[in-house]
Amino acid sequence: MKEQKIPYKIYLEEQEMPTAWYNVRADMKNKPAPLLNPGTHEPMTAEELGGVFCADLVAQELDNTNPYIEIPAEIRDFYKMYRPSPLVRAYCLEEKLQTPAKIYYKFEGNNTSGSHKLNSAIAQAYYAKKQGLKGVTTETGAGQWGTALSMACSYFDLDCKVFMVKVSYEQKPFRREVMRVYGASVTPSPSETTEVGKKILAAHPGTTGSLGCAISEAVEVAVSNPGYRYVLGSVLNQVLLHQSVIGLETKAALDKYGIKPDIIIGCAGGGSNLGGLIAPFMGEKLRGEADYRIIAVEPASCPSFTRGVYAYDFCDTGMVCPLAKMYTLGSNFIPAPNHAGGLRYHGMSPVLSQLYADGLMEATSVPQTAVFEAAEQFARVEGILPAPESSHAIRVAIDEALKCKETGEEKTIVFGLTGTGYFDMVAYEKYHNGEMDDYVPTDAELAKFRDTLPKLG
Amino acid sequence: MKEQKIPYKIYLEEQEMPTAWYNVRADMKNKPAPLLNPGTHEPMTAEELGGVFCADLVAQELDNTNPYIEIPAEIRDFYKMYRPSPLVRAYCLEEKLQTPAKIYYKFEGNNTSGSHKLNSAIAQAYYAKKQGLKGVTTETGAGQWGTALSMACSYFDLDCKVFMVKVSYEQKPFRREVMRVYGASVTPSPSETTEVGKKILAAHPGTTGSLGCAISEAVEVAVSNPGYRYVLGSVLNQVLLHQSVIGLETKAALDKYGIKPDIIIGCAGGGSNLGGLIAPFMGEKLRGEADYRIIAVEPASCPSFTRGVYAYDFCDTGMVCPLAKMYTLGSNFIPAPNHAGGLRYHGMSPVLSQLYADGLMEATSVPQTAVFEAAEQFARVEGILPAPESSHAIRVAIDEALKCKETGEEKTIVFGLTGTGYFDMVAYEKYHNGEMDDYVPTDAELAKFRDTLPKLG
Repeated sequence: MKEQKIPYKIYLEEQEMPTAWYNVRADMKNKPAPLLNPGTHEPMTAEELGGVFCADLVAQELDNTNPYIEIPAEIRDFYKMYRPSPLVRAYCLEEKLQTPAKIYYKFEGNNTSGSHKLNSAIAQAYYAKKQGLKGVTTETGAGQWGTALSMACSYFDLDCKVFMVKVSYEQKPFRREVMRVYGASVTPSPSETTEVGKKILAAHPGTTGSLGCAISEAVEVAVSNPGYRYVLGSVLNQVLLHQSVIGLETKAALDKYGIKPDIIIGCAGGGSNLGGLIAPFMGEKLRGEADYRIIAVEPASCPSFTRGVYAYDFCDTGMVCPLAKMYTLGSNFIPAPNHAGGLRYHGMSPVLSQLYADGLMEATSVPQTAVFEAAEQFARVEGILPAPESSHAIRVAIDEALKCKETGEEKTIVFGLTGTGYFDMVAYEKYHNGEMDDYVPTDAELAKFRDTLPKLG
Repeated sequence: MKEQKIPYKIYLEEQEMPTAWYNVRADMKNKPAPLLNPGTHEPMTAEELGGVFCADLVAQELDNTNPYIEIPAEIRDFYKMYRPSPLVRAYCLEEKLQTPAKIYYKFEGNNTSGSHKLNSAIAQAYYAKKQGLKGVTTETGAGQWGTALSMACSYFDLDCKVFMVKVSYEQKPFRREVMRVYGASVTPSPSETTEVGKKILAAHPGTTGSLGCAISEAVEVAVSNPGYRYVLGSVLNQVLLHQSVIGLETKAALDKYGIKPDIIIGCAGGGSNLGGLIAPFMGEKLRGEADYRIIAVEPASCPSFTRGVYAYDFCDTGMVCPLAKMYTLGSNFIPAPNHAGGLRYHGMSPVLSQLYADGLMEATSVPQTAVFEAAEQFARVEGILPAPESSHAIRVAIDEALKCKETGEEKTIVFGLTGTGYFDMVAYEKYHNGEMDDYVPTDAELAKFRDTLPKLG
């Protein structure tokens, strides 16, 4: 094994933890396109957004100029319970691959929500509490975000109403039960408890739901119940802002040992992890201070970056949310039923979409069998059982490390290990039993979903 | 909230991690009673034990004199992947309880096996590999030990055959699947694959198994297959030795900040966690250098310490294992079907049994509803979803902290948080649905199980 001057895990001291989030938008020459009112197609005002979102979060959503936004002390206290997360040197994986590359991963799974989602959940719950709200509503697919939000709301004694995509609700009863431990109410979506849910059920009887449906229901409940607002775990600018804590810690840990990464890799569904991980590195790139290869990895079965279009689209199926300009597959897109691992949202963060459109980052897609192969290879040498989502990044990190083996280059690769797979064993079982396939939507199928894109002006 | 001079989490640096295990037996005036040959009732020799266990592990099992045993570099490397585990100051729990007590917990759940079991699994796998074996066999109940051993065997490229108590095998398919990720073979026990399994099935058709049965099957397969040995996750002296890494790290972290605990609390099933956590503290106590209150917590439904007898007993149902002198309920004892959370072994570590008999530690038992109440209270403020096993210690830590609230004493309480409850959501669901009861065996029932105790000389 290589000489080990760098420890297996780099932990920051409490006093080295970030005290402000970094807002990459401040350094972007081309700002992300504004959210539009779905009726008027005019940019959403703070007042309009304030009907749906907490006031402080609206301010963060619209702030394209301040590079640093202080993390309130209450949130920093909560962060101290599970952060800093370790930056791990993957010595065992390097040894297994026999690669000269140096591989690091930022592991966000060491908290009960099992993922990085808690970083934004606690911030959103804090601002809701600060505003004197009774509670918040949200949607969850695989359940990581819903779990994270339940934990955050329990900490601040807020009511938490979660709409869980019906197929997940039925297939993942344990996720539901974790949310109950934290006192959240969990409703399978689409449900009969909302107007939009009833409408969707009438149009598609027996549907097992989608993230887009669940968002519509959660928004409806938020706007029709006084003292409630809607919160979202990805896509939005505010979420990427909160998640910048991942990248800031990663950079601080690397700087401590004088390490400069060559390649930074993250999985991308709505973009919360990737956007957070790359934030300070992208900032350096935007300011011309450094250069990095940055790679977004998405599932071949839900390829918003690599096969979507960059256009204004609805964020939800019910078309009640603002329009966002983003790489999108169309708001009715749902991955094939055999798709196992998260990252199933039809769109992509407007910030990341703009950065990608400007050529500041790359994107690639991977088939799911190869993702689970990488997951299992990683688990066997590094110990951690990764979430299927995270394993998309593992796949590409391994591929890049193997390229280094061929060329002999000692590149430094950093990837985001967003979470653990303890609640994804059904997917692993499918993989073990050979019941997984790599179905990828055809061009004709993708074209059909694009028909629902709104026609603007 | 109290002033925070102590960080939320105390992490040791890699160079502060223990390089040797501590063998508490070296400091015990009354040594634990030796294992006896079940046929001759004579103390087991190294040669006899070598047929079942790896040679180096037999040496450790019999070593009552050396206080420190070096941790081989290969094991230390593996430890670095998931250790040091954090010693957490439970500021949020203290705040919630409004107690003047200072509460710390040593959290062993931040690895994929989900518990402290990995500390000994990797050691046992290492020595098996060193001896040139093909593989190892073992039993698992709730699945934590089986998972830990699968991970360890995968790391050293050893075959791993796990006999999993049938009721767990059926109720916990996800645990089984995690073991498959690490390449282990998992057989529900009792099975038709062993002579002892067939015998048990013939005598008790339809039985859902017990730890005692699964041990018998695993031992049979080990002794009848060349190149295989049997390994065990608790009870044995060697296991407590390996688990001393928990206590050594805890003590190092406390010493770093000049903290001296008043009370040390651990859950006790077979004793692996408790024995490891208390080892260096008990050493000080035995050498007259310090005094601590040490409390073992067991389920009221499986009360070996508090209602068992201190006698030689069989370690397994099939009566093929050596006899151990320990607090025991009788080798046929199985907790009532409603018992939810681990800690279901009929006996107790001979080391801990001797220490308890000598009045060096206390023991208490708690009903399971109170355990789950404590678990949920802890989860909501400290974030971590605890394993039911660990929650026994939480219950008593909270109770002691509440006593401090009444008396105004600022005691320092340290407890072992052995693992996470991600695979125990069925138990949490029962608790939420009010389907849990606190059945406790009657004296008459306990007396019946004692009938199987061997009659010695």
